[in-house]
Amino acid sequence: RRGEMAKSTQLIDNEVFRAYATYTAIVLLKMMLMSLITAYFRITRKAFVNPEDTASFGKGESAKKYLRTDPDVERVRRGHLNDLENIVPFVGIGLLYALSGPELSTALLHFRIFTGARILHTFAYLIPLPQPGRGLSWAVGYSVTFSMAYKVLKTAWLL
Amino acid sequence: RRGEMAKSTQLIDNEVFRAYATYTAIVLLKMMLMSLITAYFRITRKAFVNPEDTASFGKGESAKKYLRTDPDVERVRRGHLNDLENIVPFVGIGLLYALSGPELSTALLHFRIFTGARILHTFAYLIPLPQPGRGLSWAVGYSVTFSMAYKVLKTAWLL
Amino acid sequence: RRGEMAKSTQLIDNEVFRAYATYTAIVLLKMMLMSLITAYFRITRKAFVNPEDTASFGKGESAKKYLRTDPDVERVRRGHLNDLENIVPFVGIGLLYALSGPELSTALLHFRIFTGARILHTFAYLIPLPQPGRGLSWAVGYSVTFSMAYKVLKTAWLL
Repeated sequence: RRGEMAKSTQLIDNEVFRAYATYTAIVLLKMMLMSLITAYFRITRKAFVNPEDTASFGKGESAKKYLRTDPDVERVRRGHLNDLENIVPFVGIGLLYALSGPELSTALLHFRIFTGARILHTFAYLIPLPQPGRGLSWAVGYSVTFSMAYKVLKTAWLL
Repeated sequence: RRGEMAKSTQLIDNEVFRAYATYTAIVLLKMMLMSLITAYFRITRKAFVNPEDTASFGKGESAKKYLRTDPDVERVRRGHLNDLENIVPFVGIGLLYALSGPELSTALLHFRIFTGARILHTFAYLIPLPQPGRGLSWAVGYSVTFSMAYKVLKTAWLL
Repeated sequence: RRGEMAKSTQLIDNEVFRAYATYTAIVLLKMMLMSLITAYFRITRKAFVNPEDTASFGKGESAKKYLRTDPDVERVRRGHLNDLENIVPFVGIGLLYALSGPELSTALLHFRIFTGARILHTFAYLIPLPQPGRGLSWAVGYSVTFSMAYKVLKTAWLL
């Protein structure tokens, strides 16, 4: 398997890059999961936003009552947007960080803490846990991305 | 042209990577188009959200009436957010997938189906088409990204 | 430092890639700053969206009055979403552009103008400046990304 990959590119043979690929795939899949949870709540709570989505419930006024907001749906959507706001910087800065030559153990520490923090953040948002549970898990992930950005700027700086 | 690029990096000489670059540029441009469609509907429907955007329509109450939501504007904005939620994972996971050494034909199949599905999704959202048109085009793109993530995790797995 | 990085990968030794890494880290950090500004306005304006966030203000009705929207909070959130809509394409297309072998001076021109335009856009949104200040800064960043996409498609085209 290694041989076949070396033909196409050597990046994936780099251990730090493989760790980056693993954790990035995991956090992006976790973010994608939010779409399924939103769909689950929209269907079970019967709370839709597009008229064409309620057509199967009948016509006119009978379907119109399902065009409404639901607190659970809105909560998942906020969690999803928070993922976008935080996982996008991780993916972008993390790639540059992985290419900036960090020690494997240091890189793994960054990737593992970020991934754990974002999984905790999702549970804290959806259960929901009392504050500062969600706030702290957000701050931990944010700090990890900030730490990687510092290493990237120290290594690559060319303005 | 090839020679000049080989000097700077060899990644772009890899055919799978060139395919990734082509389809990623296309879906990101498609996503950027949503901003222009939003602006078009805001201006033609006279539906704005920032007071400073309505200043050219006059002062005080006469301008204030244009601070309102419009169904068409909101529809484009939902399509734009759905693009962010789905195209961001494609761009991130697709890059790792392109570096994981897939067959060119398999990679092209993934990239083409995803790009086609997202273009269909936009038409299904904006026309709008009856369901399950939009739902199916969303699910196809989602599944392609999931399939690429599976290949990335199988190839790179280092936790 | 250079030697150590060359062992792990040669990408970061490429000057265009170093410039990309520097400006990408800067614009992503700028985008992350929007989270802090949102938190600042939520706390100073006492305007929250999650019931668990107002628990420290007391129980029942006394805390419930802080579950409200505030114009300043909503303005920062719109600026944050606009960042996502514009910085995500820059990061994705910019990476492919950096790997497509542009002249360093041309690449720096693109990265600098985009970064400057997005910083101006944030000031124009938050102060707020009269239009077309925000509109123009948005259009400049948009055009830079479009110009990079053109170069990527010209170089990599493989459909």
